[in-house]
Amino acid sequence: MMKILNESDLINYITSKINVSSKDVVKSIGDDCAVIKFNGQYLIITTDTSLEGPHFTKDYSPREIGYKVLATNLSDIAAMGGKPKYVLMSLTLPKLDTKWIKDFYKGLNYLIKEYNLSLIGGDTNKGKLSVTIQVIGTSKNKIMYRSDAQINDDIYISGKIGLARTALMIKSMKDKSTLKIFKKFLHLPNPRVALGIDLANVANACIDLSDGLAKDLGLICSASNVGANINLNKIPSSKRIYSVIPKKRIYEAIIGGGEDYELCFTVKKCYRDKIKKISSKHNVPLTIIGNITPKNILYYSDEKLVDINIKGFDHFQK
Amino acid sequence: MMKILNESDLINYITSKINVSSKDVVKSIGDDCAVIKFNGQYLIITTDTSLEGPHFTKDYSPREIGYKVLATNLSDIAAMGGKPKYVLMSLTLPKLDTKWIKDFYKGLNYLIKEYNLSLIGGDTNKGKLSVTIQVIGTSKNKIMYRSDAQINDDIYISGKIGLARTALMIKSMKDKSTLKIFKKFLHLPNPRVALGIDLANVANACIDLSDGLAKDLGLICSASNVGANINLNKIPSSKRIYSVIPKKRIYEAIIGGGEDYELCFTVKKCYRDKIKKISSKHNVPLTIIGNITPKNILYYSDEKLVDINIKGFDHFQK
Repeated sequence: MMKILNESDLINYITSKINVSSKDVVKSIGDDCAVIKFNGQYLIITTDTSLEGPHFTKDYSPREIGYKVLATNLSDIAAMGGKPKYVLMSLTLPKLDTKWIKDFYKGLNYLIKEYNLSLIGGDTNKGKLSVTIQVIGTSKNKIMYRSDAQINDDIYISGKIGLARTALMIKSMKDKSTLKIFKKFLHLPNPRVALGIDLANVANACIDLSDGLAKDLGLICSASNVGANINLNKIPSSKRIYSVIPKKRIYEAIIGGGEDYELCFTVKKCYRDKIKKISSKHNVPLTIIGNITPKNILYYSDEKLVDINIKGFDHFQK
Repeated sequence: MMKILNESDLINYITSKINVSSKDVVKSIGDDCAVIKFNGQYLIITTDTSLEGPHFTKDYSPREIGYKVLATNLSDIAAMGGKPKYVLMSLTLPKLDTKWIKDFYKGLNYLIKEYNLSLIGGDTNKGKLSVTIQVIGTSKNKIMYRSDAQINDDIYISGKIGLARTALMIKSMKDKSTLKIFKKFLHLPNPRVALGIDLANVANACIDLSDGLAKDLGLICSASNVGANINLNKIPSSKRIYSVIPKKRIYEAIIGGGEDYELCFTVKKCYRDKIKKISSKHNVPLTIIGNITPKNILYYSDEKLVDINIKGFDHFQK
């Protein structure tokens, strides 16, 4: 009997046991979302549970929690290039605190209005605070999968990364004076929905950076059966993090730290001009950090190979 | 500022705040499932969270938990007359116990195979045991809503009710010798999926009995703006419960007790023959317990009015 030792084992076990009987299931477990072909259009479906502890801590305001639980699901839809449309929410609350609930809904409703979503259903229970969101999106066009990276593709990252993990690191430091600069990146991440829709026409593979570049790029490479060369000096971050976190933990923040919810995607080199136009249109920097290779993921700094031993986040391991 | 005091207040607050922007949303919060019209077909969507405590106790086997968390969601699809197709599951586990996980999946997979479902996605987390399931069903035909009961409709119940609550009552008694007879009704409820699909062509309103007849019939009546006369002597239960639970608690078991997951539905009187045929086809008793009236829900026994003060289950009140 195979023993289930970590989150990957658990997901592999579930995947091995699942029955996908329906021909209209285009993508099942193993990507940011499931995809169903329904009457000629695609339905893109994701679900994520957020818990106090792994996903938010006591210093999150109810409004930030309401915002973030939906933002992380929208980010999964963005990673496939879908347009989010319908939301279901299962809400478990320890007690009925009117003020808390109203503030929570303010955060949730901000994104519902921003993306013109419909909250169509859910469930309410009493228990330890837990929020499970399901988002259903649609697409008439191409969908980006983790498994479609091609050798020689440029590897891009949207925006800047490492800032959410920097906020998390500051929380455990004595001097928390810089927290207010970085907190918004951790508490109020910006799902790249509009960007994802435009990228879907150009990019091959895409993933959102929820568990850190090292782990998430690894998921693209293993799903696509390819490798990657990454230039550490090209990874877009903020200069400010160097004055805040110790030098030896910089890579941990940039490569190991998740929760930036930026997109990491691969594109044929001939489409560089198209990517520049998309970058201008959305006013989001899109930076080449390396390229897809036949095998192994290698990190370089100043053309020297760097041994990175960072695994990314696993819910069942510390 | 309105104060949120119970589960109904919470759901009313959520409903008042939600934005349903999309014209293709046929039914939003306020029924067993949400309904979306998508490319000419209906998508019927439900989600339910199951927690240790309110939904299952320590004496449930992992296999029973895996079965029941899916069965209760399938029951919601059945109440609308939909055909369940796709399942997503967000699983929060306190630890990775290989044997527990495998047994859990046996229970889940039993229903996945029985109904030819596709488990297409999900999420895994570490924390207190909690399972959130989403089921997406489809329908090309009529859908049953809570709000469609018509005055003079017969009110029916499928199967027998009160047996799940009897099991729950026995668990708190000293003498648990009869538990094994009743336990299966509480731990392994039978979702009435095939029955629901056939009823959708004939019935007006329908709901599944998850929170007890008193509460669930009340939801049909308030959504349809009607009342009901119920003959307590006609309610189908098992004679065995009379020898197990005290006489004064019989109504609590039959009317107040949820978790039977039988269907309660209303049908025009002229369709009685059709209902008899559906009953024979599925080998499920379908019993008339009363009829829809212009207002108020009244319970009778031997033609005398009975004052029933049973509210049904509220997650936030004892």
